[in-house]
Amino acid sequence: MEDIRKYILGIAKRAKAVTYDVAARNTREKNAALETIADKLEGAADWIVEENKKDMEYAVAAGKSQAMLDRLLLNGARVKTMAQAVRDIVALPDPVGTGSFITRRPNGLQLQRVRVPLGVVAMIFESRPNVTTDASALTLKSGNTVILRGGKESVHSNTALASLIRDGLKQSGFPEDAVQLIERTEHEVVDEMLQLKDYIDVVIPRGGENLVRTVTEKSRIPVIFHDKGVCHVFVDRSADRMKAERIVINAKCQKPSVCNAIEKVLIHRDYPWKKELVQALLDRKVDVIADEKVRAYFPSLKAATEEDWSAEYLDYRITAGEVDSVSAAIDHINRYSSHHSDAIISEDYGSVQDFLRCVDSATVYANASTRFTDGGEFGMGAEVGISNQKLHVRGPMGLEGLTSEKWVIYGDGQIRE
Amino acid sequence: MEDIRKYILGIAKRAKAVTYDVAARNTREKNAALETIADKLEGAADWIVEENKKDMEYAVAAGKSQAMLDRLLLNGARVKTMAQAVRDIVALPDPVGTGSFITRRPNGLQLQRVRVPLGVVAMIFESRPNVTTDASALTLKSGNTVILRGGKESVHSNTALASLIRDGLKQSGFPEDAVQLIERTEHEVVDEMLQLKDYIDVVIPRGGENLVRTVTEKSRIPVIFHDKGVCHVFVDRSADRMKAERIVINAKCQKPSVCNAIEKVLIHRDYPWKKELVQALLDRKVDVIADEKVRAYFPSLKAATEEDWSAEYLDYRITAGEVDSVSAAIDHINRYSSHHSDAIISEDYGSVQDFLRCVDSATVYANASTRFTDGGEFGMGAEVGISNQKLHVRGPMGLEGLTSEKWVIYGDGQIRE
Repeated sequence: MEDIRKYILGIAKRAKAVTYDVAARNTREKNAALETIADKLEGAADWIVEENKKDMEYAVAAGKSQAMLDRLLLNGARVKTMAQAVRDIVALPDPVGTGSFITRRPNGLQLQRVRVPLGVVAMIFESRPNVTTDASALTLKSGNTVILRGGKESVHSNTALASLIRDGLKQSGFPEDAVQLIERTEHEVVDEMLQLKDYIDVVIPRGGENLVRTVTEKSRIPVIFHDKGVCHVFVDRSADRMKAERIVINAKCQKPSVCNAIEKVLIHRDYPWKKELVQALLDRKVDVIADEKVRAYFPSLKAATEEDWSAEYLDYRITAGEVDSVSAAIDHINRYSSHHSDAIISEDYGSVQDFLRCVDSATVYANASTRFTDGGEFGMGAEVGISNQKLHVRGPMGLEGLTSEKWVIYGDGQIRE
Repeated sequence: MEDIRKYILGIAKRAKAVTYDVAARNTREKNAALETIADKLEGAADWIVEENKKDMEYAVAAGKSQAMLDRLLLNGARVKTMAQAVRDIVALPDPVGTGSFITRRPNGLQLQRVRVPLGVVAMIFESRPNVTTDASALTLKSGNTVILRGGKESVHSNTALASLIRDGLKQSGFPEDAVQLIERTEHEVVDEMLQLKDYIDVVIPRGGENLVRTVTEKSRIPVIFHDKGVCHVFVDRSADRMKAERIVINAKCQKPSVCNAIEKVLIHRDYPWKKELVQALLDRKVDVIADEKVRAYFPSLKAATEEDWSAEYLDYRITAGEVDSVSAAIDHINRYSSHHSDAIISEDYGSVQDFLRCVDSATVYANASTRFTDGGEFGMGAEVGISNQKLHVRGPMGLEGLTSEKWVIYGDGQIRE
């Protein structure tokens, strides 16, 4: 235990030691380093794939699911995509040093609010190795230093990637410790890290519900979390039939395994094509679990339990319910939603306005699929994740979410009377 | 214990139950309620002073310090000031529903980022009863509901104030539970409250170091904290003598008990009037504790220990040290500062720019007193406090800091391909 504490404290201290150096670099320097890193990744694609094989063999032997194996797998094409993702970040605007608030006070003091890096960011993630390169590139571009902790199952891949990134940093005249990977896999390393609030400015857990809950509970460092997605579409009585069907099917079926896919559909009792809507889901082989009112016209459907309303299935399954009004839909969503993304389909002005104003979620939609909640789709470029909390950043978190603002004040001798 | 859990859960549930009602009120309605509350406070001034007497008697009997008694005391004039502070919040702009980011994506989706209330805010504070009225008015104006927990020593005053505020809310057609005071004084009430993350959106501890640390450690709800102020002035070799002296004296002596007063002065070794600067502090009866280099020309001064560099005295005392360069000053401040407010006094362009860019504090000043770090002085009106953290809000926290942003998206049938 003493040994683990020393190990992680060393990493945290090294990150803190270089944080102001990295924060002071200008955009051109950071972009050059990102280009070098992308080159390194492409140049070492064979080695990366070889290292990844070790992780794959371990995962296969451990009987991991096909979905997990697919997330873990790297091949030549995927390494190319990872390198391209790093290059794409070069093209994104650097938030550091920007701002939009400048004022002059009556006493002549000039006040500015200027974006600055957060400092040392710890990122805890699960099986996808591309988080190693994405997170490194995003934190570097925003002037932060990063401590990465990936899943045990991807440690060979992550170690290879991190060492290439550090090579690229060194070659570009940056401190290698701007990116550090925790190579030890004991979970106590994370527990210890979460106590080091004097060295680490923010922790970002990116993964399943358990990971997020554990980190949030144990951390003494501020956490930005990415919770589950229990997303809704509410089909109002005035909904356009084509829009309603297309959006519900798209939001449920286009990629059911992601957090911005819907898990619930609420249908206004007076929507004329309510039966057809449920049928459309059944036609796509979606397992529809329903409340009593929906079961009145589809008696063969399984009855929804209280738990179903807050369940995240991540599968071809949905809970369907009938509501009497827009305000009943709003109340239901505010109660059961995970406050991620919720949509109304309606041609009624007042219903849309009420829904958009009153639904307390990070992203609220009128007449569009919830599947758009994504940094790329929002025009922010790559994202660190999607925040489900209200403080600091809500919804997709990109480069700006990795910065804070400080007040910079120019005076000429002012004192307080 | 079961009893306490039930008590605080009841409060939290009532707060959550009315949060969307309060969030939906427009500015005119909220301002009318604030005016009514101000009238109620003024109308019941005698009763408030009477209730306050009970707290004062208890505090005197308990042998509380003169400073504490002064913070606790209410009289006719102070009640008037409290009511006026509520009226002043009427004049502040309402952040809810505002925004500055609107964009249209290539697929026609229109994206907006709109300010919304945080929801249920829990405020934990110490002896000043005016926090009850200030916090209630600020949270109401920003569309939030609030749970207040004041110090044990001010419970009679706070109970009287909260009941008047709730009367005012009721009379204005608002739910009384928009403002609730925790009247039970056991500390277990707070411990239990800090677990209720499903009902409370944010916790703001406002008080001494112990209070902030305890809350930060125990809370499962996101915390915005107001830490201590270990503020610095660095007097560069090129500093203007008059500005340096005036600012150092003002920042130290104008009100030493507050967090934006300085605790440290760093002097460039080549500043020609370094001796005169220390003498000016001594002339104001400031207890100067010094490093070896300063003691070389003032041998009678007490020697600074390592602890002195991070100590918050809140008194007529300062630690003075000599540094060899601007970058040495920056490194020292980044190491020992509480990252609250730090200033450089210099006529040198490059030194000022380096200092402002590299010092990692919520507010950095060139040639002005650190005493300006304050919501009122920054033109924000009343403040909830001064944030010492990097996430969400940094520096003085006013109405905007009590809001979050949500994404509002207008479509016309878009689905993700």
